[in-house]
Amino acid sequence: MDHAGLFENIVKKRSFLCVGLDSETGKIPEFLLKEKDPVFEFNKRIIDATAAFTVAYKPNSAFYECNGAKGWLSLEATVNYIKENYPDIFVIADAKRGDIGNTSKMYAKAFLENMPFDAITVAPYMGEDSVTPFLSYKDKWVILLALTSNKGADDFQYHNEDGLKLFERVLNVSQKWGTLNNMMYVVGATRAEMLKEIRQLIPDHFLLVPGVGAQGGSLAEVAKYGMNSKCGLLVNSSRNIIFADNSENFDIVAGEKAKEIQTEMEAHLSKHNLI
Amino acid sequence: MDHAGLFENIVKKRSFLCVGLDSETGKIPEFLLKEKDPVFEFNKRIIDATAAFTVAYKPNSAFYECNGAKGWLSLEATVNYIKENYPDIFVIADAKRGDIGNTSKMYAKAFLENMPFDAITVAPYMGEDSVTPFLSYKDKWVILLALTSNKGADDFQYHNEDGLKLFERVLNVSQKWGTLNNMMYVVGATRAEMLKEIRQLIPDHFLLVPGVGAQGGSLAEVAKYGMNSKCGLLVNSSRNIIFADNSENFDIVAGEKAKEIQTEMEAHLSKHNLI
Repeated sequence: MDHAGLFENIVKKRSFLCVGLDSETGKIPEFLLKEKDPVFEFNKRIIDATAAFTVAYKPNSAFYECNGAKGWLSLEATVNYIKENYPDIFVIADAKRGDIGNTSKMYAKAFLENMPFDAITVAPYMGEDSVTPFLSYKDKWVILLALTSNKGADDFQYHNEDGLKLFERVLNVSQKWGTLNNMMYVVGATRAEMLKEIRQLIPDHFLLVPGVGAQGGSLAEVAKYGMNSKCGLLVNSSRNIIFADNSENFDIVAGEKAKEIQTEMEAHLSKHNLI
Repeated sequence: MDHAGLFENIVKKRSFLCVGLDSETGKIPEFLLKEKDPVFEFNKRIIDATAAFTVAYKPNSAFYECNGAKGWLSLEATVNYIKENYPDIFVIADAKRGDIGNTSKMYAKAFLENMPFDAITVAPYMGEDSVTPFLSYKDKWVILLALTSNKGADDFQYHNEDGLKLFERVLNVSQKWGTLNNMMYVVGATRAEMLKEIRQLIPDHFLLVPGVGAQGGSLAEVAKYGMNSKCGLLVNSSRNIIFADNSENFDIVAGEKAKEIQTEMEAHLSKHNLI
């Protein structure tokens, strides 16, 4: 999928919602624990209930790895299920990998070749040769950490050389590594006011925006400062949707929550004359 | 294992060698491919042949993840095998993880609780709350990326605020998060001349030094600039040892290579009056 394809789906779904599949075993409804693969069963039901309102899914690898090899199978089953049943939906491995070149190549193989993920999040600390191996796959994306939504973002991301903060240098330098069609950036919603400044550096790139909802970010602010003429936003919500309810109807409630957010997103898209 | 325990093992083994288990399936001797778990079988023989000369092992998670769930089982079998047979050897998960707090907690569970790793490498970009969840385990270590051995290290790690480079800020700031007994740092051997400067900032911490050999770093330079009164160094070698030979005797050759490096290390320890 390329930049235009992403925008097309956003228009079609009237949504720029990404559902974060941070499917922690300890938090899924108890009645699912009797299933052979409770995490996959949980994801499957969440996916079926939310797919109509969603343009992207984002499983975070940590919540699968903590179940060992079994967790890896749940992750594989999940991405395969999405691609088989909802082929237009963009699937992101939120894995925050990054290593020297020959090693990043193996991570790329794991997520972009062995599994049908469209994109992987990558940490920028090790620079160009740690990132480019992920860009050698056609129609696959790197989503590079720029400004994250957590408190620790203050520790290093604002480190300032001659007026250029580290996350701004990441945005500037990394643009040369990829294109509008294979690079996007993580920019946390808890820093929505920074989106205005970021849009001056990268007016056209898609941004993956975590931190709306549970982490306190505002969708209205994100849309106000971050939306461009092709939307340019994938806004992630995880716990607010997937753990909204813990009963046998958890999937119905998750669908309702996703629809609520989609409706709000539709209004923003409309206000910006994109639908 | 604490700082004193590590030094004790270094003195006992007369070595500060860490063997990197970057056991890429495509590079292991062909005759092993008939085994049920060729990667584990390879590691087992490498470990048995090198353990006498080694104070640490460091499997890099990328080379296991690229085999999916099966790879995860090879990784688990490897770390279990080391801990069962060579309990004094320090085992590092070279995973370069790091995410928001509740997510890093899951990575910590995966590597430090579900598997008996002593340490995990962590990327610093997301700051304190992405690192501290790994530090909540007794006798377990974080090895934080500071200055890496790859070319891309130049892209961001030297970003300079008022004379303080980013990797120096990482060293300064992160010292408050842990102690000498649960934090060490990755400093690439290809930047051995930087070790002098780094030792002014962190005189006492252990450093994990990759990049000797295949990546071009010199052991003599690393020892000259980086060694302190408790050695303070774990120097990693991967391909030069584990892929030194591709025949049925690959493990014997790996053992010889490890012994060669150990002998060189013994001379440096002796020169610094540590043995």
